[in-house]
Amino acid sequence: MPARARYDAETIHAILDEALFCHLGFAVDAQPFVVPTIHARVGDRLYVHGAVASRMLKVLASGAPCCVTVTLLDGLVLARSAFHHSMNYRSVVVLGTGRLVEEPSEKLRALEAIVEHVAHGRSREARPPNDKELAATHVLSLPIEEASAKVRIGGPIDDEEDRAWPVWAGVVPLTLAAGAPIADARMSPSAPPSDVVTGWRRPC
Amino acid sequence: MPARARYDAETIHAILDEALFCHLGFAVDAQPFVVPTIHARVGDRLYVHGAVASRMLKVLASGAPCCVTVTLLDGLVLARSAFHHSMNYRSVVVLGTGRLVEEPSEKLRALEAIVEHVAHGRSREARPPNDKELAATHVLSLPIEEASAKVRIGGPIDDEEDRAWPVWAGVVPLTLAAGAPIADARMSPSAPPSDVVTGWRRPC
Repeated sequence: MPARARYDAETIHAILDEALFCHLGFAVDAQPFVVPTIHARVGDRLYVHGAVASRMLKVLASGAPCCVTVTLLDGLVLARSAFHHSMNYRSVVVLGTGRLVEEPSEKLRALEAIVEHVAHGRSREARPPNDKELAATHVLSLPIEEASAKVRIGGPIDDEEDRAWPVWAGVVPLTLAAGAPIADARMSPSAPPSDVVTGWRRPC
Repeated sequence: MPARARYDAETIHAILDEALFCHLGFAVDAQPFVVPTIHARVGDRLYVHGAVASRMLKVLASGAPCCVTVTLLDGLVLARSAFHHSMNYRSVVVLGTGRLVEEPSEKLRALEAIVEHVAHGRSREARPPNDKELAATHVLSLPIEEASAKVRIGGPIDDEEDRAWPVWAGVVPLTLAAGAPIADARMSPSAPPSDVVTGWRRPC
């Protein structure tokens, strides 16, 4: 999937903000692990969180280098030749070393940002974390310093000699679509959905 | 994101097949890298491909351990408490060591499988790879042996004491949706789109 590299903060931040989750890479004894997790960006820092017992967070809190990658799939690129098939996408790779967030107000802000990242406005209507929940959660902060984006846009790049190959070529656009909200049946009564829920749109 | 672990081949294969791309993790001098790339499953093997010059494939072909992770995002889980917010998803992690595919017929079948994985039927209508293209492409084979899935399904798991918290709780379902195909304007004439294009659906 050839794509144009970009290094400007505006592009990098926009992709990080639009992606609902990331894939976090770390290594234990030379074996890489790649784990999906939710992230949030606050300024030029990324936050991820997890249970205090999480192996991933223990490894990262110890100062092990990590890689956070987010990828937004925008379309299938169907070329005339099998070779030039591709995908349109926007991705960001952030390399670095995290640190555990110890300061209570920064930790609370980071957890709010993670909820806000997934559903804008939700941190103001959900029940905030209590002391027990905060103690059970680790938050890791990663600077967005060594970061790069890759962006592929547009149609297939076919060879001139394939012009007459008798097949349609172009792009099938792909987007993440939200369906009708499904109310929790396990616990009732439930309040009616707020604008946070009914108006949910993919962050961008 | 707590989720139930599963180890049966049926679940693992179905998730690998539905995911249009994977995140591939490898390490260079203890620095992990996580790169989005297209994969295909043939039986109990995964194939990925790339340019012969690709650093990723050079590292993997040398026998470095790697991790292939795919994640399907199925919904946002909005709980009454911030703490119990989550996502519904299905993911697979495959650990192992790849080998470069040298045998020409296996290489060709793997490349066909990658095109078929993205758009079923496309390898029969696109121009097949020629010798030059085959020589420029590396294909890596990874056994699906050390593999596990995680699946989170269903609504929020709130604490009993949050039952009366005055907020809607439930799930916002998310799916990958295909838009109307966009014909390549850069090269013409183009054939009309075949069933492969107009009938494209997310593999599952």
